[in-house]
Amino acid sequence: MDVCDQTPLQAVLLEIGRELESCKGEGNVADYIPELGNVNPDKFGIHLTTLASEHFAYGDTEEKFSIQSISKVFSLALVFEREGERLWQRVGVEPSGNPFNSLSQLEYEAGIPRNPFINAGALVICDHLISHCSMPKQTMMGFFRTLAGNPLIGFNQRVYESEKAHSYRNRALINLMKSYGNITNDLELVLDLYFFICSIEMTCRELAQAASFLANSGVNPLTRQQVVSSSKAKRINTIMQLCGFYDEAGEFSFKVGLPGKSGVGGGIMAVHPGKYSIAAWSPRLNAKGNSCLAMKALELFTTRTKMSIF
Amino acid sequence: MDVCDQTPLQAVLLEIGRELESCKGEGNVADYIPELGNVNPDKFGIHLTTLASEHFAYGDTEEKFSIQSISKVFSLALVFEREGERLWQRVGVEPSGNPFNSLSQLEYEAGIPRNPFINAGALVICDHLISHCSMPKQTMMGFFRTLAGNPLIGFNQRVYESEKAHSYRNRALINLMKSYGNITNDLELVLDLYFFICSIEMTCRELAQAASFLANSGVNPLTRQQVVSSSKAKRINTIMQLCGFYDEAGEFSFKVGLPGKSGVGGGIMAVHPGKYSIAAWSPRLNAKGNSCLAMKALELFTTRTKMSIF
Amino acid sequence: MDVCDQTPLQAVLLEIGRELESCKGEGNVADYIPELGNVNPDKFGIHLTTLASEHFAYGDTEEKFSIQSISKVFSLALVFEREGERLWQRVGVEPSGNPFNSLSQLEYEAGIPRNPFINAGALVICDHLISHCSMPKQTMMGFFRTLAGNPLIGFNQRVYESEKAHSYRNRALINLMKSYGNITNDLELVLDLYFFICSIEMTCRELAQAASFLANSGVNPLTRQQVVSSSKAKRINTIMQLCGFYDEAGEFSFKVGLPGKSGVGGGIMAVHPGKYSIAAWSPRLNAKGNSCLAMKALELFTTRTKMSIF
Amino acid sequence: MDVCDQTPLQAVLLEIGRELESCKGEGNVADYIPELGNVNPDKFGIHLTTLASEHFAYGDTEEKFSIQSISKVFSLALVFEREGERLWQRVGVEPSGNPFNSLSQLEYEAGIPRNPFINAGALVICDHLISHCSMPKQTMMGFFRTLAGNPLIGFNQRVYESEKAHSYRNRALINLMKSYGNITNDLELVLDLYFFICSIEMTCRELAQAASFLANSGVNPLTRQQVVSSSKAKRINTIMQLCGFYDEAGEFSFKVGLPGKSGVGGGIMAVHPGKYSIAAWSPRLNAKGNSCLAMKALELFTTRTKMSIF
Repeated sequence: MDVCDQTPLQAVLLEIGRELESCKGEGNVADYIPELGNVNPDKFGIHLTTLASEHFAYGDTEEKFSIQSISKVFSLALVFEREGERLWQRVGVEPSGNPFNSLSQLEYEAGIPRNPFINAGALVICDHLISHCSMPKQTMMGFFRTLAGNPLIGFNQRVYESEKAHSYRNRALINLMKSYGNITNDLELVLDLYFFICSIEMTCRELAQAASFLANSGVNPLTRQQVVSSSKAKRINTIMQLCGFYDEAGEFSFKVGLPGKSGVGGGIMAVHPGKYSIAAWSPRLNAKGNSCLAMKALELFTTRTKMSIF
Repeated sequence: MDVCDQTPLQAVLLEIGRELESCKGEGNVADYIPELGNVNPDKFGIHLTTLASEHFAYGDTEEKFSIQSISKVFSLALVFEREGERLWQRVGVEPSGNPFNSLSQLEYEAGIPRNPFINAGALVICDHLISHCSMPKQTMMGFFRTLAGNPLIGFNQRVYESEKAHSYRNRALINLMKSYGNITNDLELVLDLYFFICSIEMTCRELAQAASFLANSGVNPLTRQQVVSSSKAKRINTIMQLCGFYDEAGEFSFKVGLPGKSGVGGGIMAVHPGKYSIAAWSPRLNAKGNSCLAMKALELFTTRTKMSIF
Repeated sequence: MDVCDQTPLQAVLLEIGRELESCKGEGNVADYIPELGNVNPDKFGIHLTTLASEHFAYGDTEEKFSIQSISKVFSLALVFEREGERLWQRVGVEPSGNPFNSLSQLEYEAGIPRNPFINAGALVICDHLISHCSMPKQTMMGFFRTLAGNPLIGFNQRVYESEKAHSYRNRALINLMKSYGNITNDLELVLDLYFFICSIEMTCRELAQAASFLANSGVNPLTRQQVVSSSKAKRINTIMQLCGFYDEAGEFSFKVGLPGKSGVGGGIMAVHPGKYSIAAWSPRLNAKGNSCLAMKALELFTTRTKMSIF
Repeated sequence: MDVCDQTPLQAVLLEIGRELESCKGEGNVADYIPELGNVNPDKFGIHLTTLASEHFAYGDTEEKFSIQSISKVFSLALVFEREGERLWQRVGVEPSGNPFNSLSQLEYEAGIPRNPFINAGALVICDHLISHCSMPKQTMMGFFRTLAGNPLIGFNQRVYESEKAHSYRNRALINLMKSYGNITNDLELVLDLYFFICSIEMTCRELAQAASFLANSGVNPLTRQQVVSSSKAKRINTIMQLCGFYDEAGEFSFKVGLPGKSGVGGGIMAVHPGKYSIAAWSPRLNAKGNSCLAMKALELFTTRTKMSIF
């Protein structure tokens, strides 16, 4: 690391962790999927991995949590690498405005989702995945395992089933896109893959590790494999920067200043291109659906270390 | 009839029929469902039934056609009679503005369709029908047969299957409503009933007869049975007046001046409360989805006989 | 009258008036324009004029009130007669959906208002009026005076100024239309005429009289002058039926069953083509902006006399 | 500069300039304001200023052009420094989705613009400016002159008048906001200030210099004065990153990778925090309203120098 040596970084995380003790209790655990509610709401962990394979951590960083929408970054990476620029004919790269627009905007824009991180866009990505892979679930799971360096990563069956049982809005989205011809595979297969990917579980450490290729010009630091081209890594980082936090992208960009992605499981993953990747987790969410403590932790981290992109 | 005696009415229909010969060829047969395209586009028929059981007809009035959305009037009648005023908690009675709004407006209004004649509203009616009847298809079919006085009315299996295979937008609508809690039964059952009802086939004569209870204060003139209360018949007529012609309610009200309902099969049914019911059919549609010739025939009819409500 | 002789009609109004005594107090006087609030909220009057020039009345029918949006029917009549069918190139004849759409729908439909009774549409009518008349205020005022048979009809200066001072939304509408090229005259002139027309004051008797040409195929029963052609009168009645009551057109059509128009001053005017015109007034409004008591009075009237169009 | 020495940077600009010669002719000069059309469409210039006060330039960098919406960054800076965090009660910091939403979204969100760079938001900023300054035009002009280090910066009277004469949509926006209470000063004063600021003219060199405080933690490198706090500079950069390029923020972020702001005069300004500021100009715009050549020049620059934030 060019601005901090090892000891201070660990000290900074420790300091942040202690400081956040007093903030525990803010926000509420996601309840739109019942299964997500069955988690200790006061868990908190943060883990940082540098490109030099240094690791710094604080808290519950070895506990698995549901990565939910953070998975959309990884399915995008897999599909983008295979599909190339043609991908953007079926999904955009611009912010979507506000959540109210979800179906309205999709209808107005004739079935083309604004970006790959809103649900409609992620469904298009899953549709591509099925077109490219004969066994998309296995391919996706293998991708996560290789990136995280852990062959034991899995998914949560109960969360998966819970998602599936509470999926009416996603079904409305995919049917609307299908009516515009923007889904090519069987809808049930696409939805099933989508729920499967959302229900994957990782620890903070695994997630930080898995994301590190995006900080490393597309190269997996563990295997030296080029996961996506350097240009594609940059594109993905840009989309995270602009669209990664639902209706709070501006707020996160300002406070944290890193490209990142959040999930309603309470996780946030972020990368500093050329330097490090980081993952934080705490289940209680703010009104916009982002983890209160994880956001605060990342904000404190980039503020104190001055390691943001702005 | 108080303004015309029998001979002139038949003469008027004959005159209109001949006049419209020169207009054949305008418009296009609906093609969003392939099966609907398999019909002779130049068919035309018009049939009028007075409350005194007089019949006047011209053209292909004994030929069966797909009544499509005209069926929504009958399913509304059946459900409204059973459910009563509580019905309006789940569906409105106001015009919907324009087709663009279909999903957007439904999203903005939290899953409550604006009226029972837009697709979303008709799906809510089907949902009620399932809640009220153990065998809703049979009940609905029996309802049509009794009203039309013909036990042989049936549905078109190929149209039914064709509807079902091209139903993504309807599936988007029903899933969106379900996400707001405005559908209570299994979505597949509701959709299946909806497609079934849309694929019922009738002749102009049968349709005019079946609608006559709405001109007769809710009483079936054939059986003297009170199908719906007088007040409910008035409510249904009002909804037809305001919402019966997609985005052309104002145009139809002005030109024809009768409460009515059209379908993309090319049929139009209309009633003159206290006087008569009428059905016209011709498959070619204008840009708004209403039959060119059937609209023109009804316009000529009410203009010449001065038998409109305005 | 064909269904009631004179004595019962007067008796019906008396009965309705007494019955509504118990409903006084419901609803609230419009307050978006402060000046409209300066009125005794418990006033109530109803006046009916038959085409045979019979008059029946109950309550405060000789008291002037601000006719507000009811004026839109009269400016439409004046402009439609002069402009003819070309008018519909710049304003539609279809219901607008809901109030939320006011600016959104206008933007989506590129500056063409859905009908002449939403504010945007009435502004287009005023724009036409200025194009057709060298002194549009005088022309409009003369029109009202001739129709009502009273040369003393005037406008309320304080209401006019109050409207003008609280006109931001109307200014947003007219500027948006101008940006699409759908306003041809100076915006201030158009707005000024609009506010002037809205602030005209009439009594129930005068209003019922002024509207009677719409019940009489376009002929002013006092002067025998053809105000608008019979076809145009029918068109105007149709637009009233579908668009006359903001977001309560369906409700009014069902309950009252007559083409009509309401204003936030608490007035409602309605016509029964071929039979009579009627005006009711009471300042307290329901949540949709229509007079509680005037609506109820008209509902009771058409229910008891069975004199509705449905 | 830490990655390039002086000679190569100048060489890079020269190379880019030559390369772009072949692209001249793409796109069209803005014509929504006639006066903007009176410019040589094939002009092109690019100027870079490092925090160490080095200057590198190519092309027409000493020619004045209309900065248009780029001015919104400077009015925001001036107001944000004075108003502080309370500013965000009246304007948001999130991307707006798409241009279609301009009025619709503002209506849906009750008059609160999504960010300070859409027109509605910039009008709110002007409203604040009037509240804070007795002579806002002079204050604003003085601000530009001090930042650019040139007391002769001025505005174009004809562009100013041309803007004013073609301002219906902006008038619709401001009236809509006023109807929601989100404008406090006289509308004409606010609009006049808005048009004035948009019609300021600068050269590429002046613009790059004026923007350099945003690359320098809020400090004007010429005067060492703290223009805005370091935190506020970061906030402004974030908003530029997410909202600076109309409906092409994602595209620009990816291709150029710097916070920036474009104007329909063909200018683009961007900053690399801690390193440099840069301005490019060429009048022909792409379909999204951003300068074709200026975008391409910045893309080539950050690609070759690897000096972007991603």
